[in-house]
Amino acid sequence: MSFDRLIKRIIELKNPTVVGLDPRLEYVPEFIQKRYIDEDGGTIKAAAKAIFDFNKAIIDEIHDIVPAIKPQAAYYEMYGHSGMKALAKTIRYAQVNGMFVITDGKRNDIGATMEAYTNAHLGSVDIVGNQVSPFNADALTVNGYLGTDGISPLLKACKELDKGIYVLVKTSNPSSGELQDMKLEDGRTIYEAMGDMCEKWGADTIGEYGYSAVGAVVGATYPEMLTELRKRLPHTMFLVPGYGAQGGGAEGLKGGFDENGLGAIVNSSRAVMCAYKKEGCNERDFAKAARREVIRMRDDICQYINLK
Amino acid sequence: MSFDRLIKRIIELKNPTVVGLDPRLEYVPEFIQKRYIDEDGGTIKAAAKAIFDFNKAIIDEIHDIVPAIKPQAAYYEMYGHSGMKALAKTIRYAQVNGMFVITDGKRNDIGATMEAYTNAHLGSVDIVGNQVSPFNADALTVNGYLGTDGISPLLKACKELDKGIYVLVKTSNPSSGELQDMKLEDGRTIYEAMGDMCEKWGADTIGEYGYSAVGAVVGATYPEMLTELRKRLPHTMFLVPGYGAQGGGAEGLKGGFDENGLGAIVNSSRAVMCAYKKEGCNERDFAKAARREVIRMRDDICQYINLK
Repeated sequence: MSFDRLIKRIIELKNPTVVGLDPRLEYVPEFIQKRYIDEDGGTIKAAAKAIFDFNKAIIDEIHDIVPAIKPQAAYYEMYGHSGMKALAKTIRYAQVNGMFVITDGKRNDIGATMEAYTNAHLGSVDIVGNQVSPFNADALTVNGYLGTDGISPLLKACKELDKGIYVLVKTSNPSSGELQDMKLEDGRTIYEAMGDMCEKWGADTIGEYGYSAVGAVVGATYPEMLTELRKRLPHTMFLVPGYGAQGGGAEGLKGGFDENGLGAIVNSSRAVMCAYKKEGCNERDFAKAARREVIRMRDDICQYINLK
Repeated sequence: MSFDRLIKRIIELKNPTVVGLDPRLEYVPEFIQKRYIDEDGGTIKAAAKAIFDFNKAIIDEIHDIVPAIKPQAAYYEMYGHSGMKALAKTIRYAQVNGMFVITDGKRNDIGATMEAYTNAHLGSVDIVGNQVSPFNADALTVNGYLGTDGISPLLKACKELDKGIYVLVKTSNPSSGELQDMKLEDGRTIYEAMGDMCEKWGADTIGEYGYSAVGAVVGATYPEMLTELRKRLPHTMFLVPGYGAQGGGAEGLKGGFDENGLGAIVNSSRAVMCAYKKEGCNERDFAKAARREVIRMRDDICQYINLK
């Protein structure tokens, strides 16, 4: 009904970070690739199996340190229906290991179609009386360009199934300002207007830590905006991409957190998945290298915030 | 490199319409459902097989009348990885039958991630030297909230692979105005600003009919805005949802077309898929009923435009 489940886990682990599992096949160590390519050749089936093994080993090593994973749907769709099967299996495996799962799908549509996305990613589908949950993540990133019609079906799932959403507000990329920073007649920027809608959409789902089930994606690469938005949107939890690889430093993140070190969760993808490449260690130690990186990241960020 | 392939087919068939294949299992006649549910039970596998049979029969009956189909990704994701397999098979089957395929995915992301979506839906993926095309549609609907970083990878596919995109500009739903109709400081609405970006993004992909590879989604439910946008965006082809079921009438559509009856393609989904229910004919005649409906729709729309 809010992000309480995730926030509780953040407090337990004293770690407001999430690992983006965006596994391009190139990131997967060769000994894992080989395991399946020898069997199935250069197929989506082999790629998907390799990716799932890779994810699984990383989850095994990080689930006692990191509260959540954020699989990026694009990297699974890239391997077709086999990739989507790997996505479903990854979500399930992380949840069984106590992790909260945010599917990064940036989905958007209206009415019955948005309901279909909601059922696919957060809920369940009725197949002649049988309830099936195709992906069953705990939260989904969404794009609010279509207004309330695109958000209502999600709010229903948030309330009834204890799920959450993160709406794109101010994204981390260089050109995010082209549209998002435009000034409206009323003096607000578009991203501020979108942020204000998040507060409105979430208003009746506020949990015990003061945050609703409707979060916002706000990039680490724009620290001033992150700080301003934290003040402007007191009930909106932030999902913050752009730390590390995209250039956002840990100190700049602190404005995204409240006085208790809550209100934001910071994502890192490639730096964790490819830690073994950066370290130059044996590729068989990729998951241990990922563990070292998530600990480093946690400590890097926690030095600037007041999470007890 | 532009929408020329689609426009040529529109001219050949004298029909500027597209059929949305958004097959909820409830739309599929029971005799088809039964075929697979007897075998596999209430599973995503059975649902996906039933949906593909349904799509296939409709494509068989409409491919000589209608230039394109628009499968809505949400209705395939709803049936998990099996549904995504049905999507890939539907796309392929329609193309083999000479149809142009627009995947309605409203995808959006940045940089390498948008490239992954592009490769998944329009291009191909390298798996240890093997090029695989997971979905291989001819065009994809996208959301431009993230700016040029989210569009550039698609433009590359448009140019190199002769594909197209439709960017959400003014959507057909009741609440589309909440964000899209807001006025900017410079006097434009947000949807006009988004439309202007489409003209810019498409500028170097203009084909022989004057339209670029970057189209816009503009709802049939706002006829005045459709007319204004046609004048404002002379090189941007429109994908127009909202005809029929959502309340947009055929006469209101004419402003979306240019003086040659080109520049727009109008979608109908449920009215075609469920024509047999509306007619009350035998469910085994569902595909013939769909054929009758697409002919009716073509004639309804063509009476108001000048397509030769």
